Amino acid sequence: MAQKQTDRKPDLTPFFQPRSVAVVGASATPGKVGHTVLHNMIEAGFTGTLIPVNPKGGEILGHPAVPSVDQLPHGPDLAVITLPRQHVAETLRQLADKGTRSVIVITAGFKEVGRDGWYLEQEIRKICAQAGMALLGPNCLGMINAAAGVNASFAAGQPDQGRIAFFSQSGALCVAILDWAAGSHMGFSKFVSLGNKAGLNEADMLDHLADDPETDVILGYVENVENGEAFLRSAQAACRKKPVLMIKSGTTAAGAKAASSHTGAIAGSDQAYEAAFRKSGIVRVRDVETLFHLARAFSRQPLPYGPNLAVITNSGGPGILAADACGRFGLYMARPAQRTVERLQAFLPPHSDFYNPFDILGDADAQRYRRTMEIVLDDPMTHSLLVVLTPTAQADVEGTARAVADMARRMPDKPVFACFLGMQGVRTGKEILDRAGVPCFVFPEPAVQGIRAMYDHFLRQQRPLEPAETRPRDLDRAAAVVQRAREAHAREIVEFQAQEMLAAYDLPCPATRLARSSDEAVRLADELGYPVVLKIASPDISHKSDVDGVRVNVRNPEDVRRVFWDLTARAAQLRPDAYVVGCVVQEMAPPGVKEVIVGFRRDEQFGPLIMFGLGGVYVEIMGDVAFRLAPLSRRDAFEIIREIQSYMLLKGVRGEQPVRFEILEEIILTMAQLALDFPEILEAEFNPVLVNHERALVADVRMTLRS
Amino acid sequence: MAQKQTDRKPDLTPFFQPRSVAVVGASATPGKVGHTVLHNMIEAGFTGTLIPVNPKGGEILGHPAVPSVDQLPHGPDLAVITLPRQHVAETLRQLADKGTRSVIVITAGFKEVGRDGWYLEQEIRKICAQAGMALLGPNCLGMINAAAGVNASFAAGQPDQGRIAFFSQSGALCVAILDWAAGSHMGFSKFVSLGNKAGLNEADMLDHLADDPETDVILGYVENVENGEAFLRSAQAACRKKPVLMIKSGTTAAGAKAASSHTGAIAGSDQAYEAAFRKSGIVRVRDVETLFHLARAFSRQPLPYGPNLAVITNSGGPGILAADACGRFGLYMARPAQRTVERLQAFLPPHSDFYNPFDILGDADAQRYRRTMEIVLDDPMTHSLLVVLTPTAQADVEGTARAVADMARRMPDKPVFACFLGMQGVRTGKEILDRAGVPCFVFPEPAVQGIRAMYDHFLRQQRPLEPAETRPRDLDRAAAVVQRAREAHAREIVEFQAQEMLAAYDLPCPATRLARSSDEAVRLADELGYPVVLKIASPDISHKSDVDGVRVNVRNPEDVRRVFWDLTARAAQLRPDAYVVGCVVQEMAPPGVKEVIVGFRRDEQFGPLIMFGLGGVYVEIMGDVAFRLAPLSRRDAFEIIREIQSYMLLKGVRGEQPVRFEILEEIILTMAQLALDFPEILEAEFNPVLVNHERALVADVRMTLRS
Repeated sequence: MAQKQTDRKPDLTPFFQPRSVAVVGASATPGKVGHTVLHNMIEAGFTGTLIPVNPKGGEILGHPAVPSVDQLPHGPDLAVITLPRQHVAETLRQLADKGTRSVIVITAGFKEVGRDGWYLEQEIRKICAQAGMALLGPNCLGMINAAAGVNASFAAGQPDQGRIAFFSQSGALCVAILDWAAGSHMGFSKFVSLGNKAGLNEADMLDHLADDPETDVILGYVENVENGEAFLRSAQAACRKKPVLMIKSGTTAAGAKAASSHTGAIAGSDQAYEAAFRKSGIVRVRDVETLFHLARAFSRQPLPYGPNLAVITNSGGPGILAADACGRFGLYMARPAQRTVERLQAFLPPHSDFYNPFDILGDADAQRYRRTMEIVLDDPMTHSLLVVLTPTAQADVEGTARAVADMARRMPDKPVFACFLGMQGVRTGKEILDRAGVPCFVFPEPAVQGIRAMYDHFLRQQRPLEPAETRPRDLDRAAAVVQRAREAHAREIVEFQAQEMLAAYDLPCPATRLARSSDEAVRLADELGYPVVLKIASPDISHKSDVDGVRVNVRNPEDVRRVFWDLTARAAQLRPDAYVVGCVVQEMAPPGVKEVIVGFRRDEQFGPLIMFGLGGVYVEIMGDVAFRLAPLSRRDAFEIIREIQSYMLLKGVRGEQPVRFEILEEIILTMAQLALDFPEILEAEFNPVLVNHERALVADVRMTLRS
Repeated sequence: MAQKQTDRKPDLTPFFQPRSVAVVGASATPGKVGHTVLHNMIEAGFTGTLIPVNPKGGEILGHPAVPSVDQLPHGPDLAVITLPRQHVAETLRQLADKGTRSVIVITAGFKEVGRDGWYLEQEIRKICAQAGMALLGPNCLGMINAAAGVNASFAAGQPDQGRIAFFSQSGALCVAILDWAAGSHMGFSKFVSLGNKAGLNEADMLDHLADDPETDVILGYVENVENGEAFLRSAQAACRKKPVLMIKSGTTAAGAKAASSHTGAIAGSDQAYEAAFRKSGIVRVRDVETLFHLARAFSRQPLPYGPNLAVITNSGGPGILAADACGRFGLYMARPAQRTVERLQAFLPPHSDFYNPFDILGDADAQRYRRTMEIVLDDPMTHSLLVVLTPTAQADVEGTARAVADMARRMPDKPVFACFLGMQGVRTGKEILDRAGVPCFVFPEPAVQGIRAMYDHFLRQQRPLEPAETRPRDLDRAAAVVQRAREAHAREIVEFQAQEMLAAYDLPCPATRLARSSDEAVRLADELGYPVVLKIASPDISHKSDVDGVRVNVRNPEDVRRVFWDLTARAAQLRPDAYVVGCVVQEMAPPGVKEVIVGFRRDEQFGPLIMFGLGGVYVEIMGDVAFRLAPLSRRDAFEIIREIQSYMLLKGVRGEQPVRFEILEEIILTMAQLALDFPEILEAEFNPVLVNHERALVADVRMTLRS
């Protein structure tokens, strides 16, 4: 149910940097939304033309008001609408006629309130789309661009200017975060409340903010995305330019229920979102606090080019907590070079710890911190530095803060973080670090988590863009199978037809022959070599196990003959209606095979979601599976296999040889290819795929068609 | 290397509530530790006798100083020592002679600086122990008991009085937390820096604080515990009385390395700590921020008696975040009764959400919050309530806070939490809630996490205390086996001896007979019934697979004879030195068995750590195991089986019957019994235990003796 979307990217300059702004519904009454918006625009120091629109005319907050939109001198770059909802559509038409470039509809009462609101929202969407007016909202808080002197929102107060952009589907979260940021010295480059996303959505924001020179880090809060494909495209492009951190809420069943009753959003499945974030390189964050911890880290420091963290501390306990966090988040404690240790020993007190964490003792002054930092950062095996300070009686909080700030400036290639434990006692130090752009945390854990996220981002950036891999196949032959199945109104493609599909995609499968008589079965088994598998063959029996229709390990001609009679007789008895063709004679799986499953389901938002896992209990009981969104690159196929926990079993335990991974990768790539080739196929599964050190065979396959 | 510990519990009244305090090393020079301690005591409003001790005599901070300890009029209840370390021991002797009741040694330079410090520490420990003086430290920040007007620490400033007790092995963390708490309206009942724990340790704190009427919640930070057994005993007793939340740091390899170089503490394994915390009912916390979030929750509200959370909010987004957190932390969103929905519909605006989360819209005033809370809390399916407020323009922050506070007071059996998003805009509301004892959070996630932890604690409290289960066994027979092995200087108990142990513990094992000739083997196989297993029997061959010494599925007398010759000949050839007795003839595993592993290893701190898991790859590759500390109750055995992820396989998939869980439980209980019976056994493993729906057999066993 993705909303249709035009492919043309809107130019958001008039929206974010308007030269003229009309506030339609401006009010002289404090407390009214129309008053707050006008007030905020003035307070933000807007230097362009600011026109209140109010039927009573007169002057509002010192600005002469125009009584109606059609009396505006010209269409403004941006109009902010705070009128009751029944007036919104008409006003938009008038604004469009005037040549207005963009609008913010703050008014609520649209999609989020049910059917009539939904129709109204469709109407205003259409008006704006036809007039080429960018539309933010409805049902939103507005937009703030501090650098341009724009605060077109009814937020309380003005956020500081900063280098972090934030957009949110929840207006409430915008309110809360502005309020919280004000108390935490956090500033924003752009701040956008998306509301119902009738016009501008998260993809538009990503497109614009990716190229915004005032934004270093992009943060987002989304409950759903409007158009999976557009989102993926924009997110991939944006992540190549700067870090994008996002909360996707409504991830649990409880949350999703809340999400859909909230803005009428239909949430895609969480696994698909997870795969989409990974594919595009978005750092997924689970809660608001972590979002801002990470934003602070990303916005201020270079990315670490390696996993080794050095910790300098004036106290043992917090050093251990940092080292623990290091283990928890998968970083390494840097091991200092011998020369580093010697240089430290030359001047540090003898009871210091010369190995990471470097405990330089409770009486460490700024100078001791400074020299230790110099030496530790000079060690090539230090990739990032965390400076921990406990406000002991002898600690020089301000001096140390200045030393850290200096060092961060002089070391532009290694990120330097600070953790000044406490609050009151380290306040002045924190302020110095804040101004210097060194992220400073209260406790060590979030600092380390931030460094880890930055290192992940570094690793992703290092990767060359891998092209999606196209697999060879006979498309006509495959299309014919699908065509026949659709003509027969089949819901599934199984057995002969499925075998035909496998052949069209050049997939390795066990040698399989159809025997219409027991004589033929024996002849075919002789050809294939014993032992063989026999399976009942009937277009009407899709679940062969229902008629106990499979026998493995049939070892000789006599047994083949007996089993053939047995299977066909049983099928005839149990399913007298079914047309039984005979039996399929199939080559047995080679010894030492492992069973894996390769499948896909088509996500409504993001398209084919490819799944990989080990067969049997590993998928079903242990839930040990990995996902990727199609199209896949060779590396995706490489990684999806190695991501499952039971990968070790494929690699071989107790001296076993590893399975043929390349063939497995090709089968996974082919599944993605098939999913992209035939949108008519809703789901497919190769189950099991039998793989050993030499071969991989697709032993069974099932495909479900879109009804 | 657990430190020896006397079993007598010290009376800590003179320590925590001294009537007289001597500050030995008191100084008139601001900035000196001896000055700060005296100053802190005065500032805390100490009303007892306060005596500075300083060789120069005179008056310090208005108190006449005594020139030396032996000139004290009498032994004080508490003496605080800030002297250089070389004077500490002598001073302690003098204090002991005077009849001093307790001492705090703030001075550093003991165990933490190496060998000479370690000896010094042993000396002062001995002096105090002999004199019966409670000893805190050395190398600590001191102790604070605000209610008693005691601040015997060199912390900067006075913490607020509150109902949370905190003790910490890291002095630095004490400093940081005091500083942070001062900025967060968090007060403490007792605040103790344990330092090197030469005397008082975490077990003593737990004993005392459990009965402290001023403490509602106990928080601790430990890097190691001194005496596992004492710790377990104290923690179990304390947790029965009030919630105990603890950080155990040094949990990762990196952290543990830091921990041991820090205070010379030898950390027990993390799994053993995990099991110990679980056994005693301690809530284990991973980071400092969470510790205080949870402390706030526990200290102020009743425990929820069920998992259903209701969320009332004036905004959608934060409601979804709360619902997501609910899913993440394993709570349920309460489903309102039809009557609740109808009552809400009777007065809430029509676009509200009448299902949980209850979104009462952005213009909700205090009265709307109040009535919604009344109705929602009245629903018996609501077990706890989270009230979310976003500071919208129309929100009545203070009025809503008062309404929430009221409601919490009137509903003493359901916990009420608040999340007032933001900071500046909700400050006044937060203060009202703070005073009313309603925990108020900035973002929803930590609030939900807090409720979850409280619900866990409720569940634990509900459990009747289950006695450890004693298993029947023939102790003399088992002791004889161990005795013989020790006399033979064996490192392991295997094969015949091990079988004898199994018999002594009445453990079911496959019928097993020793055949000294091929004739005897055939006769025994005839008796057991075919197929059978043959294994080489030699006291000198412990790894039978080294000589390929096992054959399963031997189906008839001829094969038994052939295999007997085969195995014995091979063994003779490969291990000419070994004394080959013959072959063991063993009953085959029944069909459909599953293999599980039951084992233990002896943790240095906490004793036998029992392990359970599914055999083969589940333990080795998937790491799917569970642990408990001995002794075990029947419920422990029940739970350890159900805790592993692959438990589903034992329960039976695809129509299989479940295994005989009772027998499995008995085998696990017996392993615990064996571990407790024989401290000489360092590790043991039943591997595999074969279990199906009828039986469970211990098919192989190995025990390692302490060398």
